[in-house]
Amino acid sequence: MENAPKSHTEYLWFDAPSRKMLFHITPKIAEIVSKSGIGEGFVLVAAMHITAAVWVNDNESGLHNDIDDWLETLAPFGKDYKHHATGEDNGDAHLKALLLGRQALLPVTKGALDLGPWERVFYHEFDGKRKKRVLVKVFGY
Amino acid sequence: MENAPKSHTEYLWFDAPSRKMLFHITPKIAEIVSKSGIGEGFVLVAAMHITAAVWVNDNESGLHNDIDDWLETLAPFGKDYKHHATGEDNGDAHLKALLLGRQALLPVTKGALDLGPWERVFYHEFDGKRKKRVLVKVFGY
Amino acid sequence: MENAPKSHTEYLWFDAPSRKMLFHITPKIAEIVSKSGIGEGFVLVAAMHITAAVWVNDNESGLHNDIDDWLETLAPFGKDYKHHATGEDNGDAHLKALLLGRQALLPVTKGALDLGPWERVFYHEFDGKRKKRVLVKVFGY
Repeated sequence: MENAPKSHTEYLWFDAPSRKMLFHITPKIAEIVSKSGIGEGFVLVAAMHITAAVWVNDNESGLHNDIDDWLETLAPFGKDYKHHATGEDNGDAHLKALLLGRQALLPVTKGALDLGPWERVFYHEFDGKRKKRVLVKVFGY
Repeated sequence: MENAPKSHTEYLWFDAPSRKMLFHITPKIAEIVSKSGIGEGFVLVAAMHITAAVWVNDNESGLHNDIDDWLETLAPFGKDYKHHATGEDNGDAHLKALLLGRQALLPVTKGALDLGPWERVFYHEFDGKRKKRVLVKVFGY
Repeated sequence: MENAPKSHTEYLWFDAPSRKMLFHITPKIAEIVSKSGIGEGFVLVAAMHITAAVWVNDNESGLHNDIDDWLETLAPFGKDYKHHATGEDNGDAHLKALLLGRQALLPVTKGALDLGPWERVFYHEFDGKRKKRVLVKVFGY
C-alpha cells in the first residue's frame, strides 16, 4: 500500500538551569521529521508543561531580549497572583505560556519541514530548574 | 487494510448562564477520543464562535481568577470599542478570544489524549447567555 | 483503496502596499479545500514570514480597527526595540505576530471548511511593502 498513514512521536526533555530560558529547537525537529520517514503531513510541537511556550519566529538575540522585556511588561514576575496561594510563585509563567501558546503545528512537505526563510522553532521556559517535556508528533504518509 | 485514515467529528454545545464562564472539558474530549477508536493522530478542539477561546493549562481556581483579572487588564470590558457601532457590546470578548486563541491541537497516542501531567483543556466563554458550539475533530488511524 | 491519505499544498503571495494591512482570505482557503478533493481532515493556514499573523474572527470593520488600536497599545510601533540594532525597524511587527499567532488549523468536514457562522480567516500583515508567502496545506482523505 503506497499511502498508508503513519506517525512518529518523540518526547524532548529540557532542564533549564535558570528560571527563564530560550531553546532553539529547529534542528532537532528537522531531525525527527527526517527520522519519521514521512513525506507529507504535519509535525506538532507542544510543551507538555503549563509554564512554557513553543513559538516560531526569528533567531535574533536582540528580538529575543525584546520578547523577554515585553512578556515582563504584560505578565510580570513577582506580582501577588492568586495562584500563589497554592505555594507556587509562577503565576506569571502560566500567563506568559498562555500569551505565546503551548504549541506550533508545522507543515512537512516532500520529507522536510516546510518553513519560511526566517522561521525558527523555539521552546521558551518560564519556570525552569525542573525537568520538563516537549512532545513532537509527526503525522502523515 | 490496517492503517486507513479515519476521522470522528462532534459538536459540543454550551449555554453559559453568565457573560464570562470557564468550562473544564478534558473528560469530554477524552471520551470523544476513546469513542473515535483512533490510536494515533490529533484532536482539534476549536471554538466555532468568535468571542470564546479554547486553551490548555492548569485546573487551579486561583490561576483561573488570575487569568480573568489579566484579561480584563489587557482587553477590558466596557470600553468604547468601534465594534459597538454595530449594536454589540462585546468588543472585549473578541480581543480576549484573539489573545488566548480559538483552538488547541492535542496529540492522540496509543488511543488516548497524550497530555502532560497538569495539562487540562478549557472552553472559555467571554460573551455567554447564548448557545455556542465547539468543534471536536479526531483524525488519525 | 477507499481511504488513502492525501495532501494538497499551495503558497499564497501577498504584497501589501502599506506597512499594515488585513486580507480576508476565507474564499481563497475554501477554494483550495475544494480543489484538494479532501473530504475529511484539516487545513493549516500559516504565515511563512515572522512579521505577520493568521487568525480567525469576525469580518467587521469596526472590530478590525479595534484590533489595530489594541495591537498598537500592546506592541507599539516606533519604540526603541533592541531588534533595531540589526538595522530593521519592525520589532513591533514581530511582537504583534507572536501575540496573534502565525497559524490557524481549520477543520474540513464533508469536503468543505467547517467554520462557525461568523468565523472568517484573515492574513494580517504588520510589515508590508515586500513579497510574503502564506502556506495552505490541506491534509486528509
